Amino acid sequence: MTDQQTSKQAKTVFFEDMAVGQSVSLTHKVTESDIAAFAELSGDHNPIHVDKAFGAASRFGGNIAHGLFTASLVSTLLGMQLPGIGTIYLGQSLQFKAPVRPGDEVEVSVTIRELVSRGRRVILDCSAKVGDVEVLSGEATVLAPKKPLAA
Amino acid sequence: MTDQQTSKQAKTVFFEDMAVGQSVSLTHKVTESDIAAFAELSGDHNPIHVDKAFGAASRFGGNIAHGLFTASLVSTLLGMQLPGIGTIYLGQSLQFKAPVRPGDEVEVSVTIRELVSRGRRVILDCSAKVGDVEVLSGEATVLAPKKPLAA
Repeated sequence: MTDQQTSKQAKTVFFEDMAVGQSVSLTHKVTESDIAAFAELSGDHNPIHVDKAFGAASRFGGNIAHGLFTASLVSTLLGMQLPGIGTIYLGQSLQFKAPVRPGDEVEVSVTIRELVSRGRRVILDCSAKVGDVEVLSGEATVLAPKKPLAA
Repeated sequence: MTDQQTSKQAKTVFFEDMAVGQSVSLTHKVTESDIAAFAELSGDHNPIHVDKAFGAASRFGGNIAHGLFTASLVSTLLGMQLPGIGTIYLGQSLQFKAPVRPGDEVEVSVTIRELVSRGRRVILDCSAKVGDVEVLSGEATVLAPKKPLAA
């Protein structure tokens, strides 16, 4: 991902500093080269993703991105921003609601829904939109890092 | 993915030819370059994945793969083999149960649990193992393609 707003430097939000409703988001313009790279890395060369003629003749009228590529942007928010460094990823549910096409600008967000002190578990609502259309929804469960004690 | 057993040619299994219990699997040896490529593509540069010293000092004693990289191998089975061409991916749940490390040989499988004629929906149990340890489990929901009528 090459969006300028996305640094390679992960942040940390400690469990003790979290609040229900806290949210982070990113936007990413999906390219044909993202899709080609995801196909190569995952081994999923289904023609709906990578074959132009097949895509054009399909119900979608063109190629679409792999659902798990969009999902990977959700996990990027968890790993880079909230909680960031120290996150332990426990689970993720995903509903793929609409196609994402090359050229689409995807806005991905995660929002804290529940904080469970026992075990520092955090449950987050996850969403990806293209314009006003929600293309992905789901729920993430992570363990958040504990705030270090002051010396 | 460069495993020799993985062709770039997707297959198709039509809904009418499916049976509960039908299963496909693949194995993939996870490399540091897989992890670096997934970090680059997703934007998730969390140091647990990409910083050797951070990984060594962590609870895992080393770097680990992104959970969604292992998950992407699940979706590769759906997109390439079962159902393969014509699959519409509706949903996925994922539980991340144990870390996957560079050098681990991951065996991923999907097994048909339920066939719903209305809408040709297929529910599959998904699993990834490293040796005897299950590292990922979950459930996929897809629409399968309809068998063409004979001419």
